Parts: sequence; C-alpha cells; structure tokens
Amino acid sequence: MKNKHHDFLTKQPLSQQVTDFLLIRIDRGDYTAHDKLPSVRTLAQQLGVHRLTVFKSYQQLVHNGKIYAKDRSGYYVMPCIQEELKDSNLLHNLASVSDKSYDGTRSIQQLLSPPILAGINFKPPVVSSPLRTNMLSELQAHHVDYQFSKALIDPALLPNAYMSEYVKKVFDLYPKLLGTYSTVQGDEELRVTLAEYFKKRHQFFLLPEDILITSGAQQAIDLIARLMIKPGDTIIMERPTYSGAIDIFRQQGAHIISIPMLPDGYDMDELESIIRNYKPRMMYVTPTFHNPTGYVLPASKRKRLVELAEEYHFLITEDDTTYDMYFEEEPPLPIYGYDTEGVVMYIRSFSKYIAPGLRIAAVLCSPWLMKDLLTLKSLADGGSPLLGQKIFMHYFTSSRMQTHMEKLRIALSLRKEAMERCLAKTNWEWTPPKGGLDLWVQLPEGVSSVELLRRSLALSVSFVPGPFCEPDAVHHSSSIRLSYCYTSERQIEEGMQRLIDAYDSLIHTI
Amino acid sequence: MKNKHHDFLTKQPLSQQVTDFLLIRIDRGDYTAHDKLPSVRTLAQQLGVHRLTVFKSYQQLVHNGKIYAKDRSGYYVMPCIQEELKDSNLLHNLASVSDKSYDGTRSIQQLLSPPILAGINFKPPVVSSPLRTNMLSELQAHHVDYQFSKALIDPALLPNAYMSEYVKKVFDLYPKLLGTYSTVQGDEELRVTLAEYFKKRHQFFLLPEDILITSGAQQAIDLIARLMIKPGDTIIMERPTYSGAIDIFRQQGAHIISIPMLPDGYDMDELESIIRNYKPRMMYVTPTFHNPTGYVLPASKRKRLVELAEEYHFLITEDDTTYDMYFEEEPPLPIYGYDTEGVVMYIRSFSKYIAPGLRIAAVLCSPWLMKDLLTLKSLADGGSPLLGQKIFMHYFTSSRMQTHMEKLRIALSLRKEAMERCLAKTNWEWTPPKGGLDLWVQLPEGVSSVELLRRSLALSVSFVPGPFCEPDAVHHSSSIRLSYCYTSERQIEEGMQRLIDAYDSLIHTI
Repeated sequence: MKNKHHDFLTKQPLSQQVTDFLLIRIDRGDYTAHDKLPSVRTLAQQLGVHRLTVFKSYQQLVHNGKIYAKDRSGYYVMPCIQEELKDSNLLHNLASVSDKSYDGTRSIQQLLSPPILAGINFKPPVVSSPLRTNMLSELQAHHVDYQFSKALIDPALLPNAYMSEYVKKVFDLYPKLLGTYSTVQGDEELRVTLAEYFKKRHQFFLLPEDILITSGAQQAIDLIARLMIKPGDTIIMERPTYSGAIDIFRQQGAHIISIPMLPDGYDMDELESIIRNYKPRMMYVTPTFHNPTGYVLPASKRKRLVELAEEYHFLITEDDTTYDMYFEEEPPLPIYGYDTEGVVMYIRSFSKYIAPGLRIAAVLCSPWLMKDLLTLKSLADGGSPLLGQKIFMHYFTSSRMQTHMEKLRIALSLRKEAMERCLAKTNWEWTPPKGGLDLWVQLPEGVSSVELLRRSLALSVSFVPGPFCEPDAVHHSSSIRLSYCYTSERQIEEGMQRLIDAYDSLIHTI
Repeated sequence: MKNKHHDFLTKQPLSQQVTDFLLIRIDRGDYTAHDKLPSVRTLAQQLGVHRLTVFKSYQQLVHNGKIYAKDRSGYYVMPCIQEELKDSNLLHNLASVSDKSYDGTRSIQQLLSPPILAGINFKPPVVSSPLRTNMLSELQAHHVDYQFSKALIDPALLPNAYMSEYVKKVFDLYPKLLGTYSTVQGDEELRVTLAEYFKKRHQFFLLPEDILITSGAQQAIDLIARLMIKPGDTIIMERPTYSGAIDIFRQQGAHIISIPMLPDGYDMDELESIIRNYKPRMMYVTPTFHNPTGYVLPASKRKRLVELAEEYHFLITEDDTTYDMYFEEEPPLPIYGYDTEGVVMYIRSFSKYIAPGLRIAAVLCSPWLMKDLLTLKSLADGGSPLLGQKIFMHYFTSSRMQTHMEKLRIALSLRKEAMERCLAKTNWEWTPPKGGLDLWVQLPEGVSSVELLRRSLALSVSFVPGPFCEPDAVHHSSSIRLSYCYTSERQIEEGMQRLIDAYDSLIHTI
C-alpha cells in the first residue's frame, strides 16, 4: 500500500516540496484563515512521505509566519496570508460548475471545490461500493450567517431551559438510568405512552410491540432501506424529495423512479402506470407538508395509494416528520391510517420540535416486518440510548408540551410570512404551503440554482439547490428550497435581501 | 397480499376457530401466565380474518376467565390456566434440539420453541435478504435469576448516583444542549478530549478529525462492515469470537474463515497460510481479553499481524472493548499502535464501564477511510446524540473516573475468582484470564452446550453456548461462555450451583 511516486516533487528536498505543496493550497484558498491543516500523520500518509518530513515542513511554515500551532490540536492558517485574497474565499475558490455538469453523483465538495492538484496520488479508498457523499449534510456544515439550508427548528424557539430543569427530575425518578441499556425495540414505558398517543390522536390501535424507537427518522429510513431494498430493486420516490432519503436508497443500490409532487399531490393515473411498468418494491413518500415543497397529499389520494400498494404488492414508507407543523387546520390522517393489510411502514419524528438533540423517532409497521426490523436494529446499535427516551417521554406527556407546540406553530408561520414578504419583491414563484419548514421556490427558467448557491454562499447565505432534491435525474435545476425555521424574522429579511442581491448579480452576468 | 386459506379452520364459526387456536397455544404453553397475547390487529393479520372476529374471540376468552384485559395495553393470559402445567414452562416447551441439528443459521427461538402449528399460513416476510436473528440478543432477553449470558457490568458497580448529580452540572454548562445536534463525526470537545487521552495513554498522535464517535461498539462494527464488506468478500475471524460481530458480517454477506484463538494467540504460520489461500478483505479481532475466551494476543503477534496486513493488503478491525478491564498488569499496546500504513480500524468502547446507557464508542482510522465512514454515519443516523457525549466527556476527565475504574477492576476480579471457585468443583476446564468479563469453559467432550442451556434456563440460569460464538462451522459445541460481571458474588455461587445441577441431570440422562 506504499505510494512513493510523486513525480512533481522530485526536484527539491522533500520537506521543501511539502512546504510548497501546502503554500499552493493556502494561496489558492483550499485552506483559509484559521482553518486547520491536515495532521502530520494524515499528510504523511497522503503524500507517502515520512512524518518527520511533514513535521519539518510545518515547523518551517510556522517559522515563516504562514501558519500557527495551537497547543495540541494542530496547525492552522495564519490570517494575514488570507488578506491577499480580496474576494470572499468561497466565491473566489469555487470551480466553474454549471448545472449541466451535475450528474447526480458528485459531492458538494466536487461541486464547489477546485480540482485536486494533478500529480498527487492519493491512496484510493478500498470501500465495498462507491459511496455517495451526503451532500446536504456537507452543505449544512458550511458556516454561514444566514442559514436557509437547514430544516431544523431554531434552538431559540425550543424550551431548552425548561427541559434542562426537567432532566433533573427524570434522574430523580430513574437513579440508575445511565447504568441501564434500553431494549432493542426502545423503552417500554415510552412505547406504551406513544401507543396511547396514537390511539387518542389518530385512532391507531397499537400495542407497544408495534412500535420501534429509532435514533431519529434518518436511522428509521436507513433501517427500512436495509431491510427491504437489495441492489437493483425499484423504488418510487416523489420528485423532488428529501435529499437524505435519496442518499440512503442510492447507497443501498436501489433503482429509483420518480413521480412529480404537485400542489395537490401526484397524478394517480400516472402513478399507476409507473407502478405497472416498473413493479416497484417500495414507494417512499413524505405526504404531509412534503419535503421540500410543503404540499399535502389529499386524503382521497392517500386512500388510493394504499389500494395501489395492496393491488400491486409493494410497500409504502411514509416519512411523517412534519405532521405537527400545520399553520391552519390539522392535516389529513396519515396514510398508515388507511392501511389494513400492513403495507405501510410509518415513520413519525417527534423530538425535532422539542429537543432535537434527543434524536427520537418511532416506526410503526406490521408484526412480520417489525420482527426483521428489530433484528437489524439490534445489529445496527443494539437499541437507542435510554436517557433520551426517558427525558423525551416525560416532556411529551406534560401539559407544557401542548403549549409549546402551539407557540411554535405561531412562531414558524410568522417566519414563513416574513420570508414570503421578501419573495413577493421578486419574480420567483412558489405555492404557499399550509405547514412544514420550507418554501419551494421556482427561479425563472434557465437560472442555475447551483450557480446561485455559489454566489449566495459568498454572501454568507445558504439554501438547498433543486438538484439536491432530485431523486433520479436533472429536473428543477431552477428551483431552490428555502427553510424559514432556523433563522429569526430579522435574519430572514437580511438574508433574503442578500440572496436577491446574489440573484441580481447572477442575472446581470447571463 | 390477502390470505384466506385456513383449511383447519373451516368447520366452525370463525371466532370459535380463533378461540380454539388461542386455547391450544395457551394450553401448550406458547403463552404462559401474564403473557401478553398478540394484538387484535396482529392476530387478524396473521390469520387473515377480520379484526372484529378476533375481538369477539378475545371477549369470549375474557368471559371464560382464560385471559384478562389490562386497560389499553392488551390481553394477557390468566394465571390459573397455567397451573395445569407442572414443569417450568421454558423447560416444558423446549423442543428437542440436539447440537447436531444446529446449523448456525437457526435463531434462538427456533432452537428453543416448538414448531409452529401446521396449517397456519403466516404471511411470508418480504425482506431483501434472509436475516439472521441476533441470537445473543434474543437469549439475553430471556429473564432469568442468574444471568451469566450478559457481558455487561452489573449496574450496582456503576457510579449511578454520582453520575446523576453530574448530569445536572452538565446542563448548567450547556443550557441549550437538548436543542442542538451533534456533528456527524461527534462532539468536537469530546474528540479533542479523546485525542489527548490516546496521546497520554498510548502515544497515539491523533487529531480530533481522526476520531469518529459511534453509538456503542456495535454501531462501529456495523458501519465498518457496511463500508468494507460486499457479499462474497472473505473475512477472517477468530474462533470463537463475538456473536454480535458474526451476525453483522453474515448479514453483510461475508464469507467467513476462522483461525483458532489459543491462550497465546493464533498460530501465525497457519494464519499466513489462510491469508494466502483466501485473500481476505478484512480480519476482525478482539485481541485484548478476547471475547469470549479472555485470552490476550501477545505484542510480538500484534506486530506480525500488522505486517501481514500490509504485505497481503487487507484491513484489520480491532475491537477493543475490554482493554481497561485488566486485573494485573496493563495489556500490550493495541494493534493500532503498531500500524504506520493505516491498515487498522480501531474500535474502543468507553461508556460500558461508566454508564452503559450512554452508548459511547470511538473509531480511529486513516483519513481516507474516515471520510467514507463519516458518509455512512451521516446516512445511518446523522450523528450520535449530543447529550450522552457531553455527560460522558465530563465524567471521563474527572479524577473520580480513575478511582471508579480501579474499584471496578477489583470488584470484577473478585467475581471472577468466586466463579472459578465454583468451577473448581467440576471436571470442566478453562484457562484463567487476566482480564475481561468472561470465562470460557470446556465441558467434557460430547456434552451438548445447547442441551445444557435448555436445562439451565429451566433453573433460571443463562449463559452463552459455544455455537453462538462460532463464526463459520460447528466447533466448541461443548464450550460455554460464563460472564461473571453482571451478578453479585452470592448470585454467582447460587447460580453456578444450579448450573452444575443442570449439568448433573444432563449427564445422568446420557
């Protein structure tokens, strides 16, 4: 596994070559002010040189004032070197990428970064199958001042202080809580509580053993995909859809077919024709305040969807993470409620609106699927941590919970309206959703959402470009997802103005 | 997906047939006193009848005093009906299974339960691949008074009260803790802490980005298996080995080859010959207080193993969950410490000895593997819950931690000695380990460990039979794993006496 061929490095002493290699990357902006450089170990491995060589090179750069060392955590880029870069570093360094070159398999890094220096032979990864990077998660990791790419609730809207006090009571109730594992299926007391909740709320008659607790909806989707999908299996997804689910099903080797999600749901005849042609194993849907559009699948189509699943023998995975985020009236019954044959696997996420750090979701499904799902869950992590389940349960059943949810709905609808007021100044189009966390906005035809992202990141504004939400091909490249839940109304106004500025600058260059 | 053919049910009114079906199962002991019966929904689905039919049948059984309803959580078996069963239900109901019929793919339920009533056509699961039930987890779910099957620390030995107090301080420090997601890789502050710990303890020079936090070692193994193993890939495992890892690698479709783990490690020439013949993609090892034998791979063989991995281009997954459980001197440096080429993926579990409920483990690996591992982790759950990571970190760096570990080592060695005193009364054989949580005991040749389990479960004693730990074929069927960490010294004495009684009764029937 050694790799000592670095042709471009053969003229000078090795440590000088490494120094030059680092200087090029810093000057080019791969590493900007206060960025951490690779560890000595890492870089030595990447370049196939001795660690002492890298160490010597870092010492030289420290001596020259190009980088600085911070106690034990590594080496960082000195800010002064960055002042030479006039433009925002991200803007400056983004490679020229057009929507046309987007093929659905490139990572955000590939989209946004310059190509790697020719001549450097990195060790090839030896993974079992080509991995598709979780693009959304990479995008969200970019720090920006105006964060419209995260469909997460602003921590300022959460009952943090109250919850912190609450936790202490939970520990008084369960003094051995941290010494105990949860069962694989999840804490029984929590599952009893949720069974009662589902009965009261939706008239779902469940036993605690019909419920699996997972570490967030993400894990639920992943477990279901691992359970049901083998490479080459066909899955139908809405278009657009949740980026994280696309990543999971692709990783599992699914063959993805899509059906457009319209303001009143899909064309059911078109859907049936797709089903007949492709014989899917599963359909993945977010029918209530659909991610990313916010649309709602009407009750009649929910019922019909279940009939289709029964008739054509496929399963429905209903991902219901935003059910409780309605602004006006309650949404229709979940698709799961129409199911009498056990064709629906229902994912309901709860902690997102209370304490996202807890990562609590529930899966409801028929017993014969539950049995195998439990096996996978036991292999995957042996059961979610008990602590979070107990904390969640006690808050979930408190009267305070209801009040919190009502306040949260009002706060979110105000933010949505603030964002819509800004959008009203543009010629962009959107269908106002009646709940959820996002607006799905169509830019005028021909405008590249990826190019707009590049420009808006430079102005410290982030959003999700349409292609991230495309399950199978390049559609909606002129659409963008704007989440209004993570930023204050004032931030929304400021950030939207910047986004509009970025758009104007883009239009003027076209 | 409907299934209405129940030939044996065609003579009587449907609800009476369902009632009979239930009575047979209760009388046979499938359901014993206070056992919960299937939900109306579940049973209706299984039998392909209307829910109201099942409901009527349950009402009839309640009326006849055979079962009782408990508020909203379902129907339960009335104790009186069980008094007709003289023997312990588990003993009574265990099917006759010999080791010979054990083929490595049957679940504990299949091993221990009577065959399902002929004539009932359950719906077939529609999973993507045949799932192997996590046998160990099923066995451990059996409630017994003397629990020697769990390699978990007795909660009574954990600093629960102190931790509970500690948690409150953690919340004072991070008031928005529950409103925040961890990064995918794990809390940065915790990774900085661990990097410093590894440097101080083992002279591993790491950056925080070389460390991934997972929800327990189980998740770490699962992620690594998903990353590295595609169906048909060869993996070498020790024989015997950790049952949970066998399940994961089998589920991933690995072709497993084994090498015997001896008190002084493997025969390195035999290993090299296996490697040459089978060209493995990975070797999975628990070299320090090996699970289940407690043996330690000597330093010289650790070094040689890394050389072999480099020479023959395979990766080593080093699962180091019991490193800190030494009774005398510290064990040799982890294999990871000998690796300069990035061939070792190192899993270190921490929370097990402090607060198992937190589920904290760390993976160390080379940057090019870390990148893909992070992608998988982001797909799998988006990052482990932050709360547990912060609680763990603060305790881990406290002075109290060191004292706790020292006390724990003493307590465990006393329990080990208590168990060994009991074993000394038998003609069973074992090599006293110098650390870990288990004894690996050879019964006299020809004695079936599965048959012994069946008899000992009837006496409320549980342990792990040898075949559970067999990665590839039937070996060690006369060996058993006895964990001494979960029960008090007194319980060990009582439970071991019962185990010996079960053994005596088995010997007398042979």
